[in-house]
Amino acid sequence: MSTYKLTYFNVTGLGEPIRYLLSQSGIKFEDVRVEFDDWPKLKSNMPMGQMPVLELDGKLYHQSKAISRFIAKKGNLYGSNELEAMEIDATVDSIDDLRQALSTYYWEKDPALKEKLKGIAFEKLPFYLDKFEAQVKKNGGYFVNGKLSWADILWTAYCDYLSFVLAGDPNKDHPELKKLVEKVRALPNIKAYIEKRPKTQL
Amino acid sequence: MSTYKLTYFNVTGLGEPIRYLLSQSGIKFEDVRVEFDDWPKLKSNMPMGQMPVLELDGKLYHQSKAISRFIAKKGNLYGSNELEAMEIDATVDSIDDLRQALSTYYWEKDPALKEKLKGIAFEKLPFYLDKFEAQVKKNGGYFVNGKLSWADILWTAYCDYLSFVLAGDPNKDHPELKKLVEKVRALPNIKAYIEKRPKTQL
Repeated sequence: MSTYKLTYFNVTGLGEPIRYLLSQSGIKFEDVRVEFDDWPKLKSNMPMGQMPVLELDGKLYHQSKAISRFIAKKGNLYGSNELEAMEIDATVDSIDDLRQALSTYYWEKDPALKEKLKGIAFEKLPFYLDKFEAQVKKNGGYFVNGKLSWADILWTAYCDYLSFVLAGDPNKDHPELKKLVEKVRALPNIKAYIEKRPKTQL
Repeated sequence: MSTYKLTYFNVTGLGEPIRYLLSQSGIKFEDVRVEFDDWPKLKSNMPMGQMPVLELDGKLYHQSKAISRFIAKKGNLYGSNELEAMEIDATVDSIDDLRQALSTYYWEKDPALKEKLKGIAFEKLPFYLDKFEAQVKKNGGYFVNGKLSWADILWTAYCDYLSFVLAGDPNKDHPELKKLVEKVRALPNIKAYIEKRPKTQL
């Protein structure tokens, strides 16, 4: 049997969708969490100097969305045909565009630049949330074609992180998104993971 | 038979990998090119206010990488198994990280911010090029497992655009990447597309 080892910081961020997807798919994995102080000496071992990485049967794989898609296929979370898969991928990339805009602003240290990036991110935020809300409403409570996919799980996992960045629930004014996230968090495997995961600030 | 209509600006950018992939896969498509002046009145018709979009049998699909992956599957350019597909996806996302860093810097109008973004992009550039060069060298002249995939085609198509941004060939000091790009441009279907495509500045 294959052994899965996921290595990331001890935060939600880009690692959490993979942890959710592995849990939902019933795949046992070693959940390695690197402290920020230890990162400089590990960085050069990583394929592109970044985490998360998945070690699978001794080989390292990188890029969070590539890893997530691979796990999603194993968990039957990638649609029923290639058209659905394309819609799931498009949704994932739009969700990630929003995550990236908010993250880039949040971590910027230069105050003038941070203010500018904040403007960009906070212009995007309501536009994207309204689009996502309409998409979930139109698709029977899920992002694509009325059934659970890794787009729903990605959004739910990112919301853990975005709640920190936004200091509040990103879905609070969007009832369809709120219901979707509650539904994903209540899936037995994901619920069990959330209950046992380390408590982290972000 | 399905009808494919790709709509994007009259530039290479995010549309060109899809045009290359459709050509390589032998799929006939309508290559609609929007002038910048006409964009404001079209923008609100697009799923996320962005292009490229692919219209397939009357339905609009968005996000360039999602569309590219869909076409890559049709053209047998997505590896032979799920592990290869994951490596192709990871390569694609790393290539796109570099493209995005360079593009964000290039189009920024605020001089101070542009200078800062330039620093970030030009720190990334040699690191990524060296990593890509080593990867292609290790994989027999292609990005993944010694055979053509949509990662090779994406990089080649982006090089049209990046040559403009960098005012020179991105591969000039990286012989493996240079050979790869020449090989992709010489594929009969892609060569034919390049010869007949509209000449554009970027």
